[in-house]
Order: sequence, then structure tokens, then C-alpha cells
Amino acid sequence: MAMLRAELTRRGLDGFVIPRADAHLGEYVAADCERLAWLTGFTGSAGMAVVLGTRAAIFVDGRYTLQVRDQVEGGLFEFCHLTEQPAGDWIAEHMSAGQALGIDPWLHSERQVETLRAAVEKAGASLAFQDDNPLDTVWADRPPAPSSPVVAHPLEYAGLAAADKRAQVAGELAKRGAGAAVLTQPDSLAWLLNVRGGDVPTSPLPLSFAVIHADASVRWFLAPAKATAAIRAHIGNEVTIHDPGELGPVLDELGLAWKTVLADPGTAASWIFQRLRAAGATILERSDPCQLPKACKNSVELAGARAAHARDGQSLVRFLAWLDREAEARARAGNPIDELEAAEKLLGLRGENALFQGPSFDTISGAGPNGAIVHYRVEEASNRPLGLGELYLVDSGGQYLDGTTDVTRTLAIGEPDAEARDRFTRVLKGHIALARVRFPQGTAGNQLDALARYSLWQAGLDYDHGTGHGVGSYLNVHEGPQRIAKAPSHAALEPGMIVSNEPGYYKTGAYGIRIENLVAVVESPAKSAGEKDMLAFETLTLAPIDLRLIDPALLVPDELEWLNAYHARVRAAHRAALDAETAAWLDEATRPL
Amino acid sequence: MAMLRAELTRRGLDGFVIPRADAHLGEYVAADCERLAWLTGFTGSAGMAVVLGTRAAIFVDGRYTLQVRDQVEGGLFEFCHLTEQPAGDWIAEHMSAGQALGIDPWLHSERQVETLRAAVEKAGASLAFQDDNPLDTVWADRPPAPSSPVVAHPLEYAGLAAADKRAQVAGELAKRGAGAAVLTQPDSLAWLLNVRGGDVPTSPLPLSFAVIHADASVRWFLAPAKATAAIRAHIGNEVTIHDPGELGPVLDELGLAWKTVLADPGTAASWIFQRLRAAGATILERSDPCQLPKACKNSVELAGARAAHARDGQSLVRFLAWLDREAEARARAGNPIDELEAAEKLLGLRGENALFQGPSFDTISGAGPNGAIVHYRVEEASNRPLGLGELYLVDSGGQYLDGTTDVTRTLAIGEPDAEARDRFTRVLKGHIALARVRFPQGTAGNQLDALARYSLWQAGLDYDHGTGHGVGSYLNVHEGPQRIAKAPSHAALEPGMIVSNEPGYYKTGAYGIRIENLVAVVESPAKSAGEKDMLAFETLTLAPIDLRLIDPALLVPDELEWLNAYHARVRAAHRAALDAETAAWLDEATRPL
Repeated sequence: MAMLRAELTRRGLDGFVIPRADAHLGEYVAADCERLAWLTGFTGSAGMAVVLGTRAAIFVDGRYTLQVRDQVEGGLFEFCHLTEQPAGDWIAEHMSAGQALGIDPWLHSERQVETLRAAVEKAGASLAFQDDNPLDTVWADRPPAPSSPVVAHPLEYAGLAAADKRAQVAGELAKRGAGAAVLTQPDSLAWLLNVRGGDVPTSPLPLSFAVIHADASVRWFLAPAKATAAIRAHIGNEVTIHDPGELGPVLDELGLAWKTVLADPGTAASWIFQRLRAAGATILERSDPCQLPKACKNSVELAGARAAHARDGQSLVRFLAWLDREAEARARAGNPIDELEAAEKLLGLRGENALFQGPSFDTISGAGPNGAIVHYRVEEASNRPLGLGELYLVDSGGQYLDGTTDVTRTLAIGEPDAEARDRFTRVLKGHIALARVRFPQGTAGNQLDALARYSLWQAGLDYDHGTGHGVGSYLNVHEGPQRIAKAPSHAALEPGMIVSNEPGYYKTGAYGIRIENLVAVVESPAKSAGEKDMLAFETLTLAPIDLRLIDPALLVPDELEWLNAYHARVRAAHRAALDAETAAWLDEATRPL
Repeated sequence: MAMLRAELTRRGLDGFVIPRADAHLGEYVAADCERLAWLTGFTGSAGMAVVLGTRAAIFVDGRYTLQVRDQVEGGLFEFCHLTEQPAGDWIAEHMSAGQALGIDPWLHSERQVETLRAAVEKAGASLAFQDDNPLDTVWADRPPAPSSPVVAHPLEYAGLAAADKRAQVAGELAKRGAGAAVLTQPDSLAWLLNVRGGDVPTSPLPLSFAVIHADASVRWFLAPAKATAAIRAHIGNEVTIHDPGELGPVLDELGLAWKTVLADPGTAASWIFQRLRAAGATILERSDPCQLPKACKNSVELAGARAAHARDGQSLVRFLAWLDREAEARARAGNPIDELEAAEKLLGLRGENALFQGPSFDTISGAGPNGAIVHYRVEEASNRPLGLGELYLVDSGGQYLDGTTDVTRTLAIGEPDAEARDRFTRVLKGHIALARVRFPQGTAGNQLDALARYSLWQAGLDYDHGTGHGVGSYLNVHEGPQRIAKAPSHAALEPGMIVSNEPGYYKTGAYGIRIENLVAVVESPAKSAGEKDMLAFETLTLAPIDLRLIDPALLVPDELEWLNAYHARVRAAHRAALDAETAAWLDEATRPL
């Protein structure tokens, strides 16, 4: 901290902003860009610190208000709530006229820069954009940038050749009058070029940038170490690999040629916009042109998703059978299963699956009150036994070459009480309402969100997270634009999109409940004359829902029918491949109610 | 048309835009401002014409594509769809460089002006703002501006003194750093000053403008003929009445004093903004500061709404009993009731009610296929008998001193078929889902919209209108910001708001179904420990829902319970005041299922 302040002084800066971000502004940050964690100790997935001459503050959202106090020294940083005590207000209050606040334009979107600019201007101060990050200068043991080799993502999983994808995106550019687009999102690039990598944990992303031109050619700014001969052969002649340092000069060239260049103000760094503007390019602010076609999985990707979910579900069945066999008995014997053991058991079973590449995110394995912490990550310090009469929540997923999975089950260890069954059944009613819904073309996820909450709302309950996030195809477990949440959205749900269906209920200090399946948006043709074609969700996840936690009296016939039909699908998908004991368990766990 | 073109030429204009609007940009337009109807013959509630030198076009939305062809001469005007063939594109295509398109800045919002400006600039043309409307110059028999006297709205109905309302709005202005606000919405002014008027049909609006200052004083720009001695006494010393022509100079004065002036870009005319800008005022673009407090009815207004709905519902009970007694018999006897007779009968019954002031909108009285026309208005030419086996839809409402009502019932004439019962029951399920919902503070209407559509969606059906609109208190039957619809909204539903609950289903050429009650947003405290306080809807409308159209097999127990409890309320509210025959009918019509 003292070294950082000295470096700031050397640069004539009165302060500096450290967001939890890399140059791709996404959720997945490699170790060399975990600057916020290095400086403050805070390891949450979102946050920001501001360091001034004599004071500093760290801003985190509601998920992390407890964690930040555990991890960050209160003597060095004030703790602020990201939305209730915005950084802009704090900056406006604590900076003075004539001062300069340094920012790294690679780590902020245009909108964030505007917010910071407004804040410093209130104080009469100004922003100072830094060509290199002052924190890196003092970060002695900074890890190297990741350099995992890029690998081809074969057509048998991608379903569409990269050349066809490039032509499709180029067609979009032409339609919008753009000569080129800057691509900054690693998953967009991975999709576009049919490649995968290993630069960040749990998502097969190669970190890189690219420019796609209206003639469908791509200039790909990729660290040379990541580009094997095989990958150079895979990408073909129309994709050329360049040193990442050449991105700037290429943007200059687009500007000099008076091109109209598409860039996404939601995801591209301010640096990109500044460079394009300085070069004289006309900027077309639009969402990343790969985002929507990537979100709408083709039939090969959907078939892959079904196959991946079948394998993944079978691991889950084995896990649940093991848990059911062991958890109660071992708890009674004083040798309970704990959260870490359960998570490892599940990961081990997944590891036996064909095409498995690793977990798609850090497993949430929460017993009793730990289940109520929505973003809980089990560690030695927090590890709890699965106690008798408690609920156990496990949210996990796998990366498979043919698809990405994400599933949550909540299990009763021993006999659950009436309140738990009531809450679980209400969550299930919400899950079923969404699983069964048919809806017109053009419907956005936010229009469906309340269907998943209705039964909880009726009892004065709710959950403080979205109902569904988009999921990639052997890519990010969180992707846009599809989403099911309270916040208004203009992104319609379109055929091929994969999204989670995960209502929940959390009682702080007591238990957490969540039931999560992934679903794909599919066409649902009119069933008889006079009706309209609709869209619907096909549930992909195939694993039993704990019957002990269901109060059948709360279910209406349509809901019971859905549950029994779902369990019949689960049984049919897995039974033949199981040993006799597990098959018998599955029969019981999926018996009709 | 020729005269208008001559006038345009005289003014050096190459075209002129005629929207269906007056200077308040609202839904209610007095006869002297029905310029679009005078010029084209089109009488729909929304639309716009553009007249150029040798061609002209009229733009209407999907509701009016048939009507416009009936009313407007195709030789004079091209027919265009307001959103699919936007006026901007047509203008850009048909104007040439150097031309001038006249517009009346009183009749367009800032946003509309920007759209028109972009359109003419594409053609190299420009906008020419007109101080007076060229159409008025050639409109020989133009009706005079309305000049109904303004009357006081007594405290026993308003519930809050105008002085308190002014103080409340002034407090909002102070909080936002505004020195004044320009008020252009007639219902906002009527609410603020506790006055009503009669300048437009079906809504008790005095047309006028006002400026409210941060010290809670109001300058009211009201035609002298409307200001009686009684009203001058009613408004008190802090409200001064000025000639409408003084509004401009007052805006100039605010600008000269460097004031920050609030104006609503959604509802205030471009003229207001242009004048304020020219005068040097700082404009704070925010919604009309009366809109939200007006929407949240106080306890006196809510009590008034309950009382008005009780009286209104009783008229409806008498009407429905009459219809049930007569319609089938007269249809069999070859002397059927027709749409006009039914509408008149209902109006007559309402007319007997205490505090009744007139209908709150033109009654929709649609038999058979006419019921499928969502914005149907019965006229001699379209008048249909209520035929046996048909559905009859009647959407009507009253203005009472203590409240505004709006109710739709759909009735079977004779025995309905299975399809009609299925559709009606699905609409009812949506109506009940919304009527029963509890929801957290902060929920916007668009989050609840799908609850009303779910059952229809499941059958591949939908309806092409919103589910609910805000309703005023002896004011406009359509008011904002509250609304229940598919479109994203940031306006949360707040206690005291009144909104309609009106899902429907329409089969073109066959029948229309709609079930509409008004509901008030009320607090719904937690029922037991661990739960949250929620909001809910209290149904205000008290009239039977036709049991013959309900298929009980499609209803789940919660829905049946709601229906029976609602009918018990209807029975209890009306029974004692009815004659024996009608009481017996009501008992049967509200019997538990």
C-alpha cells in the first residue's frame, strides 16, 4: 500500500482506482490480474478499491459485506456498500480541487469512466488515464500472464464451421453499415473461431482480442505462446494471428481508413473507445455481434447438451444414492460426511465421465446454515458436517467437450420438518411453473420471473437472486443476453438458448433451498387449430428431486403430473447403466407421487 | 386539403404534420383540437398525418388499420402502419433537399420533434416551427375552445387539502434542486388544486397549464371564462390565475432568474422546452411531480373508490339480471336485445346512482364478433343483436364524485359451447392469479403481467393488449405511472394505486372475452414469523362473473376458493338493496361452485 502510494506520487497522481477486472471486463479473471485481491486481500468476484493519499475504501455488494470484513484490514480501508455508498460519492467527498485520480482505461467500461469522471469533476479534480498500471510496477511477485495453448473445438461439438460463423457475423456488420467490429469477450472469440483454451479457472477460455472485418476476415491478437502449429492450421487463411501489442495500431488503421467500427459499450474497455476515437473511426455502439448467435445453440450443440446432461445426471444419481445410503447412518455413528467430502465425492464421480474437462465453477456444498449463504464456497475453515435433520444444498457443474452443466439439489439429511417441506414445495412449485410455461416469441426472461416466485410470495417469502442465467456450450456457465430476473430486459428468449431455472429460499442462520435445472428454449408448435406456435423450455438436467422434502398436498394435479413425468424421464435415462443397488435406489427416489 | 396546401405555400412550407393531439399531449382531446379528424375524417384515438405538396399519408396503429380505410379517402392519403412504416421513413423518402416541414411545437413532445428532425435531415430538409397552426387558419367552422366552468373538488372526496398537496410537490422540487415546475397535464392540475372541469368528454378535466414554485405558490394559466368567483375563493391566495397567453412570459421570467425548472419530456410539449431553453433556464427533465402522489390514492380516496364501486356494482347486478331475464327469451322471440339497447340500459341504471356524473369512457358493447374488436365502439351502423349461443362483452364505467369505475363482463347468451368455456376459464385463471398475488415492495407491473397470461399461453393463446392500466380518482380512467403490461417498466406498484385487472381472449370474427375488475394496491402484512410484509391487490369491483362460462374442472382449489369468496362479497354487498326477484337472481348467479 505504501509502495503503491509512493508510485502514485512519483506519477503525480493523488489517487488510483483498482476494480476487480481484467481487460475483458468479465467474470473470469486470471491470477496476474487479481490486483484487488493482491492489494486488499479481498477475493470476492466483484468489488473495487479507491486509494487516495491518506485514505482508501473498498466497495463490495451485499453478497460480500461479511467476507470483506474477514479478509481486508479495516485500518487501511473503509468498507462501503457498492450501491448504497457508491464509489463516486466517496471520491467526490474525499478528493480536492486540482487533484488527479489515476485510472487504467483497460479495466473500466465507458460507462464506469463517465461515472468516475462525474465524481472527480464534482470535487474539481480530474481523471488521469495511465498507459500502464501503477500497481503492476510495485507488484513484485506478480504471476505471469496465463499462456495455455489454444486448442481446436471440433465441428462434432461446435456444429457450425468457424468460416460459416465468421460469414454470419460479417453479414450482421454489413447490415449495420460497419466495416469492422472489435471483439473483446473471450467466449465470443472462442465461439467464433471454434477454439478453446485454459487461461482462467473453470471456463475453457483463451484470453485474447480480435477484429473481425466486413469481409469475414479476422485479425486475432493472441500471445504467440498460445498459438500452436495445430491451431494455426485449424483457423485457416482468413484468420491471421498478431501480437497483442498490435491491437492499438490496427485500431489506428481502421480510424485512418474512416471506417465505422462496432464496439460493445457494455463489455469493451474504455481504452478501445479512446483509441478508436483518437484514430478518427466512427464508433457504432452495439452489443457484441457474437453474443446472440453464440447464445442460440445450434442442433449439434443442443444434442451435445442433452448428452452431457445425461452423463452428468448419472454421476449425480450415484452421488445422491451414496449420500442417501451414508449420510444419515454416518451422522448417527458420529462420523458424519462433511461439505468438503461430499463435494470431492461428487467431483470424483463426474471425473469418471467421458469428455469431462473439469468443474464449470467452484462447487457450492453447504450444510445447514451454510446453505443459506448464496455464494458460499466451502473451505477448511467453514467446513460443516451434514447433520441429522439438516438440509444440504449442493450446486455444481461440469465442463464437457459437448456441453456445460450446472445443477443444484437440496437434500434432507434424516427427516425434514414441516417448515422445510413447505418452503421446499413452494420453491418446487416455482420451478415447475417455469419448467412448464409456454410463451410467445418475443418474451424476455424478466416477464417470466414472477412465475417462479408466486408461491413463495403468497407466503411472504422471496429470494434475493435472479431465477435464471444463460449457460454456454462448453463455455461460460454464465453468459448473456438471456436471463430470467426481476430487472427489465429487452433480450427475448430465443430457440436454442440455454438458461438455468433455479428458484430458491434462504433462511439466514438456518438453511438454504434451491432447485436448479438447466433448460433449453425450444419451439412448441400449436396443438390445435386457432392456437399460436409458442416457445417452451426443455429441461436438460436429469437428476431426482428429493421426495422427502415435498408436501404433495401443496401441489395441484398439473404440478404432480410434471414431477412424475420428470422423474420417469430421469429413471429411463439412467436406470440401465446403474448397478442393482443404485437402480433400486433410483426407483424409490423417482417413484410417482 | 387544397386550402391547407395553399396556406402552407403562403407560409413557404413544403409540408406539415398533423398529429392527433392537443397542447397537453394526452388521450383526451377537445373538439377544437380534433384537427386530424377534421382534415382526414379519421376519428381514432391515436394517429398522425403528414401532408406534402403532392402527396400525403396517414399513420395509424394496428387497432385502426381497418377503421382508417373506412373513414379516410385513399385517393388523398396513403395508409401507413405507425410502427412498421414509421412517419420518419416516409418523410425521409418523400422530402427533398432544401425543403421545410412545418410543425406545431405545441402538439409534439421533444422526442417526437427529434424523430422528425432526424427524418427531414436525412432528406436534407429542415423543420420549421409554426407560431400558430396553419390548419386552424383554413378551418372555417372550427368549434370554439371548451370553456366549462371549473368546480371545486371537495375535501370529503379529495382527502387532502390543495395547500397540503402544493406543499408536498414543492418539497419534491426543493429536494431535486428545482425552483419551479411546469405542469401541463390537466389531471395533474385537477389533482393538485382539488378542482374538476368539463372541457373534454368522459373525464372531468379543466384544460389549463400551471407553474408551481418551490415556495408552493402556483401560477395557473386558465381561460378567464372558466374561473368562477367560487373557484377563485376555493383556490386561496397562493394560487393566482393568469391568462393562458402569459405562460410564455412567465417561462421567460424563470429563465431570466436562472432558475432550474422541472419539465416532463414524456408529456410536456416541445414548445415548453424551446421557450425555457431560449430564456436561459436550466431544465430538469423528470416526470411530472404530481403524477406519483396523484396515483397513490389516500385513505379518503380509497374509501370513495370502495363506495363508488359498491353503487356501480349494484347497477351492474341489475343490468346483468335484466339481461339474463330478457336476452335469451327475446332472442327466441325474434326481438333480440341489441348492443345499443344494452349499453343504454346500463347507462340508465348507472344514472340512478348517487354522485354519478357520467360514463368514464364510451361503453364497449360488443356481441359475437364485435366483442373481438378490442376498441369497439357501438354505433348504429355496426349495431348487432345479442344472438343465441353468442358471447356478449360489455366494458363500461362511471365517473362518480368519489371515484372512477371501469368494469368488463362477458356473458353467455343462451348456452355457451365448450371452446368458449375453456377460453373464458383460462382468462379467469389469469384474472384470479393476479387478484390473489402478493408481491414485494418495488415490484413493477410488468413483472406480474405473465401471471395473467400463463393459462392462455399453455393453450397457445394470448391477448394483444396490456393487462392493467392505472385509474384516477374521479379523474382519468387511464393514468400512469402504474401499469401491468409486457413492456419493461421502472414504476413500482405502490400502496393506494388503482389499476385494472383485465386479461382477455379474442377470436377474430367470432367472439371476445374479457374479465375486468379494478384493484387497489394495499399492504399485506406478514402472516407469521419469518415472513416479509408484502403488497397485494384489493379487488374493488363487485359484480358477478358468469358461472355458465366457467369450467370448474380447470380450476384448482385456490382458484375456486377465490371465486366463491369473491361472489360471497358481491352477494353481501348488494343483496339487501335489491328487490326480491333480483336478489334471487344474484343468489343463483353467485352460488358457490
